[in-house]
Amino acid sequence: MNKKIVVYFLGWVLLIEAASMIVPCIISVIAGENDVWPWFLLSMGISAVPGVLLIRKKLRSGHFFAKEGFVLTALGWLILSLVGALPFFLSGRIPNYVDALFETASGFTTTGSSILSEVEAIGKGLLFWRSFTHWIGGMGVLVLILAIVPQGGGDKMQIMKAESPGPSVSKLVPRVRETALILYLIYFGMTTLAILSYFASGMPIFDAICIGFGTAGTGGFTVRNEGMLHYNTVSQVLITVWMILFGVNFNAYYLMVRKKWKEAFTIEEVFVYVGIIVVSTLLLTIGVMLTPGQGKEGGFFYSLHHASFTLASIISTTGFSTLDFHQWPEYARTILVMVMCIGACAGSTGGGFKVSRVILLFKEAKNELHLLVHPNAVRAVKLNRKTVDAQTLRSVNHYLILYVAIFAFSVLLVSIDGFDFTTNFSSVAATLNNIGPGLSIVGPTGNYSGFSIFSKLVLTFDMIAGRLELLPLLLLFSRKTWSKHY
Amino acid sequence: MNKKIVVYFLGWVLLIEAASMIVPCIISVIAGENDVWPWFLLSMGISAVPGVLLIRKKLRSGHFFAKEGFVLTALGWLILSLVGALPFFLSGRIPNYVDALFETASGFTTTGSSILSEVEAIGKGLLFWRSFTHWIGGMGVLVLILAIVPQGGGDKMQIMKAESPGPSVSKLVPRVRETALILYLIYFGMTTLAILSYFASGMPIFDAICIGFGTAGTGGFTVRNEGMLHYNTVSQVLITVWMILFGVNFNAYYLMVRKKWKEAFTIEEVFVYVGIIVVSTLLLTIGVMLTPGQGKEGGFFYSLHHASFTLASIISTTGFSTLDFHQWPEYARTILVMVMCIGACAGSTGGGFKVSRVILLFKEAKNELHLLVHPNAVRAVKLNRKTVDAQTLRSVNHYLILYVAIFAFSVLLVSIDGFDFTTNFSSVAATLNNIGPGLSIVGPTGNYSGFSIFSKLVLTFDMIAGRLELLPLLLLFSRKTWSKHY
Repeated sequence: MNKKIVVYFLGWVLLIEAASMIVPCIISVIAGENDVWPWFLLSMGISAVPGVLLIRKKLRSGHFFAKEGFVLTALGWLILSLVGALPFFLSGRIPNYVDALFETASGFTTTGSSILSEVEAIGKGLLFWRSFTHWIGGMGVLVLILAIVPQGGGDKMQIMKAESPGPSVSKLVPRVRETALILYLIYFGMTTLAILSYFASGMPIFDAICIGFGTAGTGGFTVRNEGMLHYNTVSQVLITVWMILFGVNFNAYYLMVRKKWKEAFTIEEVFVYVGIIVVSTLLLTIGVMLTPGQGKEGGFFYSLHHASFTLASIISTTGFSTLDFHQWPEYARTILVMVMCIGACAGSTGGGFKVSRVILLFKEAKNELHLLVHPNAVRAVKLNRKTVDAQTLRSVNHYLILYVAIFAFSVLLVSIDGFDFTTNFSSVAATLNNIGPGLSIVGPTGNYSGFSIFSKLVLTFDMIAGRLELLPLLLLFSRKTWSKHY
Repeated sequence: MNKKIVVYFLGWVLLIEAASMIVPCIISVIAGENDVWPWFLLSMGISAVPGVLLIRKKLRSGHFFAKEGFVLTALGWLILSLVGALPFFLSGRIPNYVDALFETASGFTTTGSSILSEVEAIGKGLLFWRSFTHWIGGMGVLVLILAIVPQGGGDKMQIMKAESPGPSVSKLVPRVRETALILYLIYFGMTTLAILSYFASGMPIFDAICIGFGTAGTGGFTVRNEGMLHYNTVSQVLITVWMILFGVNFNAYYLMVRKKWKEAFTIEEVFVYVGIIVVSTLLLTIGVMLTPGQGKEGGFFYSLHHASFTLASIISTTGFSTLDFHQWPEYARTILVMVMCIGACAGSTGGGFKVSRVILLFKEAKNELHLLVHPNAVRAVKLNRKTVDAQTLRSVNHYLILYVAIFAFSVLLVSIDGFDFTTNFSSVAATLNNIGPGLSIVGPTGNYSGFSIFSKLVLTFDMIAGRLELLPLLLLFSRKTWSKHY
């Protein structure tokens, strides 16, 4: 393995992390949190000094293969979380380092699971930092580095493959750097629009920015103790719309920017995504209407509003909540757990198994049934009218294997704590798919603080594994990754 | 499709079903159950008359392809369950026909899930019939027909493929009929030995026979209200051993019969199967020791005994129980749910996903990680030192897709009844994998009577789908299966 190039880029990761703490630090100063901002400064130093040292030695050759891309991505995200947890921990606002790590990993991976019961207690600076990690993590740090760092040759597409969600990154434009820049511009533009719309609907500017970050990255951290209920109905509807939009494959927006309207509006994945949203929302609306203390008194439109908010929040893997959906009928909760696992579109900021993978698997299964009857028939799986190559199909199959294996093993490890099956199953579903809240103890009104340190580390692993789509993190555990020969 | 050959063999299914009711009918007469045995006679008539009519027309050509094999198997098993339910329903001992159908399908598919709370109330004749369905279903009815009916040409291996569990039937001997006969002889011999050993350990002869059928077919129906606690420790240990033996790939026994000792004792699947049993039993033993009212008072050997019994019962997908494992610590229950899904060896009478499929998937996933690092490497997946062909691997992948999809969809449908997630999840796990008891409401001390008719039909579907390994039953829903052209 070319360790030099990995180390060089890790230096950039540290520098970007230090730079991204500047704004929260300033906010902390303005808010007069004198027990917080010095620790921001210290964290920035801890991050920046090794960062500068690592990028000083300019790279000459840029041997960059798959292995380097995966290792860099995995280590980069681990470092991001480990260092990003420092302000929470050093300031004492989250006294336990593992808790701080959980919270930070939850931020960067845009999960939004929290160990805090009263979020406002950590203060404006750290609240901003928490939400900002969502925004950074949404598009990916290494993609950002690709966009701004000219250095380094080789096939940097590998980094993008490792960090971007979905079965295959379609090369929007031939050059990686240009692709990364365009994606970031769309991301930045949409985030700005979301923030402005929130502000216009009556949200305080601080809230609008933080919730904007959370929506854009499909994170889920809030800045008010009462969560999303703090805002008016118009704000909530706007949030619903933006959550759905950020769960859409960014290819669609890219095609729109290039005025390729027909292609943009015929992406199969987006159709299925919208279909799932419509059908599930209707089913959930009935569920909310049946729930005493909620839709039973509120009526149809009240139920529709909160059902659509919740469904949009879950399928985009954001994790905001208005009502306590743990009180809904069992069938409605089961729908939520399933939608959790399906997740958003590939190429969006959302998590989960991804709609396109589900589509491919269903088409494959259908072909298998056909092949049983016609053993010699040749049938290709198609997506957007194009044949999907065998390599992609194979990797989707293997993704399912790894997904089920990690899921099952995590539930087993977390079960040692002795909580009920619903809690364990849904907490793994909520972290591995980067949602946020689960059911039962980790439901919308609860949090993850009750888990043991061991379980928190397992769930932290799941969050990062889920965000990086399993493979990079698993590769770290392979002896062959670290061998000199390849 | 060649409907004639399907109809002809369905006639044989009906005849065998009628014949298999003779012994329970006689037992019913001896026990003086005058409100039961006449209904046995009527059911035999309902089954035998159309059976005789259907096989009267001798077959001339034997076009027998995959399609016919799958359709015949699916329809055959549906008919078996529908007709087998008649004695329960007509006699009024199970007044609701859907309940009777659930109970019968549970019997033939060797699931062992019951809607009865007091089994002894249905009387000796029906108890025997219930357990006998386990024995018939264990090896498969169509395999039996292949063994005894000389008629019909074509590739009858297709029937065996459709009815026998596991990723691929290795052709033990070139001729199907001989293979089927040998398998049945081994099955018959082992069952006889099991019954004799139970009787020797002090079980009444009626119980020994019924429990012998249940163990051989890895069913799980009992004949006493207090279940397995009715028998002494020696009997329980014997049952543990036989359950494990019937969960082993029958290829091993076949190789032993042929005195190929080396091959018999190097089957990879059997090693992993035994490994899972040993590790899980030790982990469960700790769990039992921590449970108040059970191992906490009983001590180590008490705990080891019941942990091994339960684990053997679950992994072989038998479903007998001594202790209420729903009271065990959460991690122990989670292990049980996982072992439920893994199931027994391919080519055994047990259900579940099958150990060999799990092995193949793990090896595939490991290869995928390797391929990420070395994109151009060629690595074959091997089992028992032989390369597994791409066709088998592909079908294992598709099996996982269908399994997860049916599992998730069933949980959703059953959740409409409003029971808790643990009940729904474990009841689907217990029926789809042909185990029997689940957790919570359907735990070892509960039963399935609380579900709605709709849910019972869903779970009945799952039992048959699980026994036939998903594909045959799904094919019935495909329009193409019923088209004339192929």
